[in-house]
Parts: sequence; C-alpha cells; structure tokens
Amino acid sequence: MYLADEAWPDLESYFESESLALVPLGSTEQHGPHLPEGTDHIIAEAFARRAAEETGYLCTPTITVGVSPHHRQFHGTMSVTAPVFRDYVESLTRSLAEHGIDRVIYVNAHGGNVEHLREVGRRLRDAEVMYAIEWMWDESITDRIQEVFETPGPHGGPKETSLIQYLAGELVHEDRIEDARDGGLREFDESSGRVHGARTFYDAIDNTDNGVLGDQTDASAAVGEELFEAALDQLCQLCEWLAAQPFEDLMPNEHL
Amino acid sequence: MYLADEAWPDLESYFESESLALVPLGSTEQHGPHLPEGTDHIIAEAFARRAAEETGYLCTPTITVGVSPHHRQFHGTMSVTAPVFRDYVESLTRSLAEHGIDRVIYVNAHGGNVEHLREVGRRLRDAEVMYAIEWMWDESITDRIQEVFETPGPHGGPKETSLIQYLAGELVHEDRIEDARDGGLREFDESSGRVHGARTFYDAIDNTDNGVLGDQTDASAAVGEELFEAALDQLCQLCEWLAAQPFEDLMPNEHL
Amino acid sequence: MYLADEAWPDLESYFESESLALVPLGSTEQHGPHLPEGTDHIIAEAFARRAAEETGYLCTPTITVGVSPHHRQFHGTMSVTAPVFRDYVESLTRSLAEHGIDRVIYVNAHGGNVEHLREVGRRLRDAEVMYAIEWMWDESITDRIQEVFETPGPHGGPKETSLIQYLAGELVHEDRIEDARDGGLREFDESSGRVHGARTFYDAIDNTDNGVLGDQTDASAAVGEELFEAALDQLCQLCEWLAAQPFEDLMPNEHL
Amino acid sequence: MYLADEAWPDLESYFESESLALVPLGSTEQHGPHLPEGTDHIIAEAFARRAAEETGYLCTPTITVGVSPHHRQFHGTMSVTAPVFRDYVESLTRSLAEHGIDRVIYVNAHGGNVEHLREVGRRLRDAEVMYAIEWMWDESITDRIQEVFETPGPHGGPKETSLIQYLAGELVHEDRIEDARDGGLREFDESSGRVHGARTFYDAIDNTDNGVLGDQTDASAAVGEELFEAALDQLCQLCEWLAAQPFEDLMPNEHL
Amino acid sequence: MYLADEAWPDLESYFESESLALVPLGSTEQHGPHLPEGTDHIIAEAFARRAAEETGYLCTPTITVGVSPHHRQFHGTMSVTAPVFRDYVESLTRSLAEHGIDRVIYVNAHGGNVEHLREVGRRLRDAEVMYAIEWMWDESITDRIQEVFETPGPHGGPKETSLIQYLAGELVHEDRIEDARDGGLREFDESSGRVHGARTFYDAIDNTDNGVLGDQTDASAAVGEELFEAALDQLCQLCEWLAAQPFEDLMPNEHL
Amino acid sequence: MYLADEAWPDLESYFESESLALVPLGSTEQHGPHLPEGTDHIIAEAFARRAAEETGYLCTPTITVGVSPHHRQFHGTMSVTAPVFRDYVESLTRSLAEHGIDRVIYVNAHGGNVEHLREVGRRLRDAEVMYAIEWMWDESITDRIQEVFETPGPHGGPKETSLIQYLAGELVHEDRIEDARDGGLREFDESSGRVHGARTFYDAIDNTDNGVLGDQTDASAAVGEELFEAALDQLCQLCEWLAAQPFEDLMPNEHL
Repeated sequence: MYLADEAWPDLESYFESESLALVPLGSTEQHGPHLPEGTDHIIAEAFARRAAEETGYLCTPTITVGVSPHHRQFHGTMSVTAPVFRDYVESLTRSLAEHGIDRVIYVNAHGGNVEHLREVGRRLRDAEVMYAIEWMWDESITDRIQEVFETPGPHGGPKETSLIQYLAGELVHEDRIEDARDGGLREFDESSGRVHGARTFYDAIDNTDNGVLGDQTDASAAVGEELFEAALDQLCQLCEWLAAQPFEDLMPNEHL
Repeated sequence: MYLADEAWPDLESYFESESLALVPLGSTEQHGPHLPEGTDHIIAEAFARRAAEETGYLCTPTITVGVSPHHRQFHGTMSVTAPVFRDYVESLTRSLAEHGIDRVIYVNAHGGNVEHLREVGRRLRDAEVMYAIEWMWDESITDRIQEVFETPGPHGGPKETSLIQYLAGELVHEDRIEDARDGGLREFDESSGRVHGARTFYDAIDNTDNGVLGDQTDASAAVGEELFEAALDQLCQLCEWLAAQPFEDLMPNEHL
Repeated sequence: MYLADEAWPDLESYFESESLALVPLGSTEQHGPHLPEGTDHIIAEAFARRAAEETGYLCTPTITVGVSPHHRQFHGTMSVTAPVFRDYVESLTRSLAEHGIDRVIYVNAHGGNVEHLREVGRRLRDAEVMYAIEWMWDESITDRIQEVFETPGPHGGPKETSLIQYLAGELVHEDRIEDARDGGLREFDESSGRVHGARTFYDAIDNTDNGVLGDQTDASAAVGEELFEAALDQLCQLCEWLAAQPFEDLMPNEHL
Repeated sequence: MYLADEAWPDLESYFESESLALVPLGSTEQHGPHLPEGTDHIIAEAFARRAAEETGYLCTPTITVGVSPHHRQFHGTMSVTAPVFRDYVESLTRSLAEHGIDRVIYVNAHGGNVEHLREVGRRLRDAEVMYAIEWMWDESITDRIQEVFETPGPHGGPKETSLIQYLAGELVHEDRIEDARDGGLREFDESSGRVHGARTFYDAIDNTDNGVLGDQTDASAAVGEELFEAALDQLCQLCEWLAAQPFEDLMPNEHL
Repeated sequence: MYLADEAWPDLESYFESESLALVPLGSTEQHGPHLPEGTDHIIAEAFARRAAEETGYLCTPTITVGVSPHHRQFHGTMSVTAPVFRDYVESLTRSLAEHGIDRVIYVNAHGGNVEHLREVGRRLRDAEVMYAIEWMWDESITDRIQEVFETPGPHGGPKETSLIQYLAGELVHEDRIEDARDGGLREFDESSGRVHGARTFYDAIDNTDNGVLGDQTDASAAVGEELFEAALDQLCQLCEWLAAQPFEDLMPNEHL
Repeated sequence: MYLADEAWPDLESYFESESLALVPLGSTEQHGPHLPEGTDHIIAEAFARRAAEETGYLCTPTITVGVSPHHRQFHGTMSVTAPVFRDYVESLTRSLAEHGIDRVIYVNAHGGNVEHLREVGRRLRDAEVMYAIEWMWDESITDRIQEVFETPGPHGGPKETSLIQYLAGELVHEDRIEDARDGGLREFDESSGRVHGARTFYDAIDNTDNGVLGDQTDASAAVGEELFEAALDQLCQLCEWLAAQPFEDLMPNEHL
C-alpha cells in the first residue's frame, strides 16, 4: 500500500490492524559518469514499494535528498547538513505515530545516511514513541555480494550499477562503464584511505577522480535482478519479523 | 532537465551556462474522501517537471512532505514541524549554490508551506547566497479560477480535484465527489472561521468533517487540463523572466 | 487591569476568577516620512489597554519590537529574526500559564508578526498549554475600511495614519502627508509586486521609495477615532466570546 | 531622542553623526505587596529616557520582560527563559547595527538580567559587531546607597521603593510598606541563603514569604529623587565617555 | 568513591543507599607566568576527590575545560562557548539521574563557570529531575581568606597560587612569583574596571598584562594546606547537609 | 608536552613552531564486571600522553565523558547526548585554533564517539578552520589484533582488558575475568544482532547480560603491553605524517 496514492478513508483499516511503515530514503548525488544522480533514491524506492506490494505493509513517499557533503565537488550533488537531516527524518517519522504507527523500517540506500538514521532511531526509541531501524539492501545479502563481485565498491560500483541496470536501465550510460572503472578507484576496502589507522579522507574526491569505486564492468541487469530479488526477499521477511514483535519487546530494557 | 536522471558529467554544461533551478514541494496529507494524500506533491512535481521540459531549466527531485499539522487528525497525514521544514529546505537549497545556482523557484502546491518558503527565501537572500521565490499555480491564474469555479475552496476543492483528474485520474475516487462536497465545507473564504476578526481555527477538522472545502462537482479533467496549461505557461514565463535578471538586481538594496 | 501597574497580591483574585490575558505586540520600524517608528506598537497598546479597561480583562506590557527585516534599509527600523521572535513570544506566553492563564489574545498591529504569532499559537495549543490567537484591528472591520478609504495600503497608509492622528496626533508630521503619498506607492493590492503569480519582492524598498503604501491624504483623526472605536468594540466582543468558551473546546480535536 | 517617536527621515542626521544607543531593559515580576510588577522596567525606562534627553543620544523602546523564573510562584510574574532572552536581546541589538550603531548601553534595572546581558555583550564584541555594556543604576552609586540605607535589599527593598515613590508614586501602596518589611526578609547579604559556601536557593520564595528583601520603611520619594538624579548623572557621564572612545579601542585585543 | 575506577557491579550498593554525586569542574586557561593552565581543574579535582574519600560519596571524572573566552589572548587557553558548556553539563548530569542520583554538588574552581552552573541547576530543578548546586572553595571560607591575604585577587592570585603550591608544587614556577605580581594587576576589587558603574572590560587582557591579579608573594604551600583543609571541611559538611535533605524540600515550592 | 601542566609563557614557542595537538577522548561507562568504568578514557589518555612525550607534540586534557546511551542500563554509565557531544568537541577544538593549531588528532578509545568525531571533523574542515581526524588504537593494528585474539570483542573484551591490565592493573578484577566471559556474549561480529540485514539492537543490554563481548581470558598485561606499544608507534608515526602535510593539502578540494 502506497500512502500517497490513497485517500484518507481508505487508510483507516490499515491503521486499525497494522502499525508498521516503510520509509524509503536515499540521496541525490553524483554516482560517476555512468549512473544517474538519483541512483540511491531510485533503489530505495524500488525496494520499499515492492516490499509494500508483496507484504501489504504501508510505504510512504521517498526522502530523496540525504547527507552527501562528501560529494559536493561533483556537479549536481544535493545535500542537507547532518543535523538538519536527522531532525527532518525524526519529525516526519513522529507524524506517522499520530496514526498509530509504532515501528518503521528506513529502507535506505545511501551509506552516508546510516549513522544518522541510527541516531534518529535511538531518539525515537528512547522517547518510547517508535521503534525505527535502518535497512540497507546490500547488508542483507553480504555473502552473495562477495561471491558475485570481486570489487563491489561502496559507491557507484558494480553493486549499484547492476541494480540501476535492472531497475532503470535507460538511465545508465553503458558506453561509459569502462571509463567509470578506469577513472575511479578500483580497489577500495576498510583500510583504503587510512593512515596509521586514521581515516584521513573526508570527500569522495580525495580518493577518486570520477567519484566511483570498484569495477563496474562486472555489473549487468541480470545480476541486478538476482541481487534485487534476493534482498527484497530479506526485506519482506524483516517486515514480517518486525510486525510480529510485541511493542514492549522493542522498547528499551529497564535499568538493571 | 531532471537532475536525478543525469550523470554528473552531463550537468556540467548546464551549470556553466545557467544558474536557475526549479524545486518542487508539496505535502502528503489528507485531501478528502476522493483525492490521494499525495495531491499536493503530485501537482507540484507535474508543474516543475513540465516547466523544465518546456524551458530546459533544471528541475530537482520533489520534497513530498511539508508542514501539515492542521491535517493530523485525518488518517495518513504526514508532516514535519515548521522549523524543521524551513531548515531542511534552506539546507537543500544551499547545496545547489555549490554548483553555481543563484536563483530558485519553489514550485509549491501546498498553502501550508507558503510562509515558510518565504522565510527561507529571505534568509537566503539576506545572506546573499541565492534569490529564491515561491510560486503556486493558482496564484498565477487567479482571474481564470474565479471565472471557472463558484467555490474554488483552498483545500481539496474543485481546483485540486480538476488537476488530479487531469494529471492522475486513476487516483481520483469519482464516485465520492458528491460526498466530498456534502461532507465538507462548501463555502469558505477569508472571513470563514474568523470571530470578530481573529482566526480562531487551527486545524482543518475545526471547520470540516471530511477535510475538504468547496464544491468538487464543478471539477473535471478538461477543466484541469485548461488550468494546468494556463498556469504552466505562467511558470515558464516566470522562469524566463527570472533567468534574465542580473543577479545584483535580485539582491537586497543598500541602506538608504 | 494592567499587569505592570499591579502589586502581586492584587492580582490573586483575577487569576482565581479569570484565565484570559491580552498581550499587545507591534513593531518599531519606519512608517514613512510622516509617522513615528512606534506606530504599530502605539496602536496595539492602545487597543489592548482600552479593551482591558472596558472589559476588566488583564493586559500585559507591550512587545515593542517584532519581525521587520523588510524595513531595514530605512533609518531606525528595529527587528528581531523570525525564530527569535517566535521563541520570545512563546516563552513569555508560557510564563502566564504559571498563573492559570489558558487563553491569550495577541493584540497585534504589525502584519509582519501575523504568521509568526499563528505558529506560536499552534505550538501552545498542540502542547495543550494555552489557546492563543492573533487579532489585528483592521481584520475586524474590513468592510468599513473598504468604505472609508480608496487605497488603504497595508503599511503607513491612511489606516495607520488615521489611527495615529487620533491616538498620538503630536507624533504625526501633518505637513508631510502629501509627500508621503507622492513619494510612496499609492496603489497596492494582493497582485502588486507579483510576477506571473510569484511574490518577487522581499523588502519594502523594493516597492516604495519612502516606505509607505496608499493615499494618506484620506486620513484624519476623526476617521481614526471612528475606526478605533469600531475595532475596539470588536476586540471587546472577542474577549467576551473567548472567555466564555470551555477550555476543552479550544483544545485540538481527537484523531478521527 | 526617543527612536519610537521619530519618523525615519528625522533619524538620518543622528546616525550620520552618532553611533551610540541606550536600550532600557527591566522585568515584569512581583515586587512585594507594595510595589507594581513593572517596577524594574519603569526604573530602566526612566533612566534611559532621561539620559537621552539630557545628552541627546538615542533611546530605544523598553524590553519589559526579562529573566524572572525565580519569581514565578508569585501572581503575575512574567518571564522568558535565559537562552530566549539572550537571543532576543542579541537579535534586537544587531538590528541597530544596520544603521551604524556600534556601541550600546543596556540600561538595566533587573539583577536577573545582568549576566545574560554580559553574555550577549561578549557575543557582539567577539563578533566585532558592536560594543555593548550593561549598566545598573545602583552599581553606579554604591557608596551613596550604603550611606542612605541600612538594609538596601537587592529586590523590592528601600532602593527600589524610593525610586518608584519618586517616579510613579501613584503605583506605590504606601499603606503596605510596613507589611512589606515584616513579611519579607529584612537582612540579606552575600552570605544569605548560603550553606557552607554554596548558594542553595533558587527562587525568591525560598527566602522570603512576600517576595521582598530589606527595610522599606527607610524609603521616600525624596531619597528616590536624590538617588535617581545622582545615578542619572553617572549614566550621562557614561554616555559621554563611551561616545568618545575610538571603536578599535572597544574591540577585543589581539592575541599576544 | 571514584566512579571511573569502579566496575559497574560495585556501584550497585551505592546507588541503592545514596543519591548524591560530586562533579568536579574547572578550566584549562592561562594562570599567569607561574601557574599551570590546569590550575582550576587541578584544584576542583583535589577537593572533589578528597571529599569523596572523607565522606564516602561518589565523585565523577572532572570536566577540565569550561567557559574561558576572556583568556583567549593568552597562549594555551582552551574554552567552550557558554551555551555549549551549559548543555554539556546538563546532559552529563542528567545521565547520573538514570542511576538514581537526585542531588549533585558541582565542585567548581573557575569563576567563569559559576553563573552557567547556576543556570543548569535551575533547569534541572525546574524540571524536577535533580537538585544541583555550585560550590567554590573560596566562597566557603571568605573570612579566613580576607585575613590571610591582603589582595587575594580573583584569578592567578595568592589564593590559587597557595593551593597549587600545596597540591602540585612541582607545577609552580617559584622563580616567577615576583614577576607574576609585578607584571599583573595587584589591586583588584568589585569596582576595578568599572566606569560610572558599568563593567567595561570583557577580557583579562583588558586589565592585566600577564593575566593575573593580586599579590602572589603572600602565597605558600603551608597557607595552601591550611586553606585547602578548611574549605574541604566545609565541602564535607555540605555533602552531609545535602544528603540529609528530603528530596521534596529541594524541589521548587508550589505557586502561592 | 601536556598543555594543562604548562604556564602560558612556556607554550609560546610551541605555537610558533608547531600547529598540531592531540586531544584524548573516551567514555565513562560500564565495562563489565572486571573493568573500571573509566576504561576508555584511561586508554585514550595513556596513548595521547605517551605520544606527546615521544614526539614532543602537545596533548590537551582528556574528555572523559562521551556518547554512551547504549550502556545506560548499567550502574554508573555517564553520557551526553550526541548533539551535545559534537558541539562540545567542536567548540573546544575551535578554541585551540586561537593559538594557531590547525590540525588535531582525536585520540579516541570509545567506539560510540567515532561517527560524531568524524562529523565534527567535517564541520571544522568544511569551515577551513582545522583538519581534525579520529584515531582509535585498535584500528591501527587490526592484523595483529586478529592474530592475538580469537574473539577480540568490541567492548570490554580481551583487547580492552589487556590494555587496562597493562596500564592500570590495580583497577582490574582479575578474579571476575571468567565471569566476564561467561556472563557476556562471547562471539560477536558485524552480523551479530542483525535481522535480515538490519541492526535491530540499540543497547548493550539487548545483547549481553553483563555488558561485555568477547573472551577476556585471552587477555594479559603482557599482551596489553605489546599491543599498546605497537599502536603507540602507529600514533607517533601518524603525528609525524600529519605535521608534515601542507595545510592546503588538508583542506577540501575545489569544485571540479
């Protein structure tokens, strides 16, 4: 069920019987020479909308702009500051509580939002208003991703490329995929950009000339489909799991 | 040009030659028994995207949730608080300035956002970062609206009904349009809800049982099309006018 | 009853029997070549103090500086930012609740404060602390004003000129009234300063060389007296109406 | 010169030749059974307006409500929170800088405002916007006060009683002056209310049943007049001293 | 008992039987040519830790950086802004309430923190979360200090010099003590730096070339010991007094 | 060089020749039945102070309380909220810039601070005030830790146990180390506590009964020494590397 498409009387029975909502969030930021700036929010929206269709839970409109200051040197990147993002998401989520929603899955596809969503989730849970958790598709199928890609890359790499090839192929510049790999940073892991243990980079441009990481030539729509469906299945299961929890179990424990 | 669909290298020439962006904003809130909750952001997005197509100016993704506390008693209304909304819009707009945008049209379709967008516009202008103005379609064709509808109604009335009939007819519950009129408040003007000059209502529910105002039976997709095209033409002209202004003329005057 | 003149033991019986207070607010900002900068707060104070005398309700001291950034290019305009103004008024109003006040009329005479007072009123009502509404004298007698003046002008026009002529005639530069009209903007209505529907001005100086709007030569102390007494009567009736409402009726409705 | 009484063209020459303003601030709070709640702002306004008359410097309208949470248990006390007060005063003062004011004297008559005004003064000075200092009349004539009163009392005592007897005698309940003394706390000094060095009280009511301190029977209008004139003379001298300082000398020193 | 040294199971019985904590606070700021920058927090920590040992009450770690903008022109001074300091102390103190602490003594040794701690104490008390009071050692033995030193000086004078000579003699540059006196401001009292009653200085450097006040040659470790032990005794008594108060007696009085 | 021990004149030459500072940060929070609550700040301080000794760079006092809401159910945990922590660290760091510091290493030993320090580092870098980076000892020797411990555990495990055994052995309850392991969660990795990819836990108590993770019986002071010295060596090298960078290279890149 997609909230924005419904008239209010048609939502009444949902709120009477269910208390879960899916909130998609992404970013609008550079994703290399081959992918659209909307990559993250296109992915998040696709997962949340499909999961809502499969499970019957409610999906809200997408928050399309997130915390992306690290891409600001590339044309077109949009961003809000971290405190503003947190407050916006918190306020928006609280408005769902007016209707009885007490658990939310932030269907997120932008790494730069993760910690902020977690901070918002803590605020809401500590206030005992809501139990909100963050889900990223690639975290739900980490093993499969390791198998499929040699260098998945955390940004604009073959993972995201495959998904956009599958979900919105017309937005992919297929003819630039080799350039994407060659002009970016192919190998990137937890130790990249660290000096004696300290992360010394702040911006994407500190690491990569064209804004992307990994080897995009491993990507294809077929792989995208497989990964999307596998992660979607995880998300649907998460919905069912979360809906089944008693609210008290989701709230903070008492002091010892 | 739609920012989210473009890869960053393809935006470079735009930012080199132009400095205007269209930012669509609406709300996700009850619009009566017959219209979808997304009414306002559907309308805003349609205007902004079409104007971008017609004129070639850049359109950003849509801010779908606005300031709607006055509809919170109706199922499904989403909202953020006014201070949070202002900060979110300001921060998002400032990120466009990184790329050279110095003038923005907030293509807005929610009355509850107007004063907040104006406050943000003032902040940005007084800081000499940006000239941002708010545009609502019905303000651009007020005479025509007066002619077409006896009781246009500021919320969920025939104006908005017609537009959604035209833009997303499948989301309109045509069979509830008489109910919309009969269960709402048919006559509403500046003096409605005022007591000895003071506005005494705060929430939609203080005035109207089903959340809407005006006589929706005057609405039709054909009227919607006419109004949409007329207002779109105004918006396109506004884009051209704004793009033609020297930046200094848009900035605050000196002290006397 | 004027709060500032009373010793605390003399307020006890008021708070025992009544729960309404009048809070006057205005601005200190340019009002053209002929009117004092205090015009708005002089008017607000006169209405609130007189209404308190007539009805016996409590009047607080006046907030003399409001939100006036749009007049900052003219010598002497004082202002606070909108967020600061809202917080100041909210905090001040909350302190009245300590003594049992649960309904407030903001007797306001500055257009630039209106939306901010409404936002504060919403905060207080949503928190179920207080029911506070904004009242402007000219909104209470709109028909009579239309009859009396051809071009009332929203700022420094014949409306405000008449009132100051009546209330504080010694502060009016009668010899500059023609200059006021000729050096300002005579005709001003909702469509003024709009381009294709968008309000494109932010500051008074964008529209008017000397800071005022309307035809001041229609003003006189006699007209001022008539309008003042007519609006005062509305305010007194509003006090009685508001005092008579059960508190629960003033608070937000339940969710449907 | 009183800003609120002037039309903007008449302020031009002042701002061309002078850069000092007097801003009166007080409180609206209980002052015992015998004095009006407006005591502090009445006193502040009297000093600032008279000093402006004597010296020709500019005086702004009065901020009548300050930081008075410690009196909230007594009927009628108004207050704003400390952060809100600081932001309001800062914002208001910054608006004077638009016209060239670069030095301000906060003519303050409420002890509870002192540290907050000092904090605001620091902000403005460290930002190199303005040099603003706080002045309280009794701090300018401490020796004379020690001579005149045995127990001056910091709140509602003979000092403030004398001044109101002189400035607004009609607001003093002369027949309650003995009660004021007998029902309050007669002796109060720096060590009062301290336990082993720690200030253990927060509210006036922790110390005094009727809200006042000192022996009010030593007060008279004649003493009030003498003290007022003596302190006024100090204030006028302060104005002249401050106006004579080069702006650079008022700004922060360089780092060593 | 020192909180940071304990494992959590060993704190359980304390929180079951007691509800008081000592929180030491100081500054890290210049203290003249002869004393270490840590002077204030070294003193605060010594008092709090010793009092905890003597009485058995709980002591937390020390907040070593406070509000010291007035020393920023001298090498090494660290500081946080006043609003940030207040929020940090408030938040930290609230976390103690999770474990049942409902009364706190801020063992403070920096004058620049006093009013801020008092503001935090008010917030916590008005919220009925906690009763927190500020204690400075020299305020607890004012008579003895007057006897011992001719010119105690509020900053870097013989008071603080003696204490550091006693507590951390190795950090005192004994060979610079005469320079400290001669290069600083020997005489300093409430009237210093006032002009016609107004405090006109903001920074230490406005008054003193080397950052200190008073005659340090009167200091010695022996005097330091005597003063420390005398004030420590006061602090221990304060702990016992505070622990003995019923919580309701520490909370705000009802409105009259 | 330890800032708090120095008198201001002795810091002058440092600031003339160097512009780097080490700021230690930790937490005060439960670390299981066997370790002191100060574990994190003891470790951070030891690294920062030793690195300062070895390299000659400046070390500031330690921030002992961090962001630890996830341990609040265990006795004694202290914490500040995330926004307050960020603002405190930012403000404190900015005060170092007054003296010419333009690069800072946050020597951090609390995982819960990491993202917040990174957010502060971004603010400071984007404002071009300072280049500040976060360093955690275990991130600098990840391979060695993998070799030494089977289950290092991110909190209160053998890593932290070893270090405290080495640095402050008297604070370790050796007789509870088996209990620590048996009453905690032995195996913990990135997938722990995740449900279909989402992190579903917020508090330590959601995962572990006694608050700790890993197998503490692998710990010893000897291992602690080895790890400490190895990581210290990394930190010293980081200092030298950072000091050698030209400031411009540390600042953000230009827009493409």
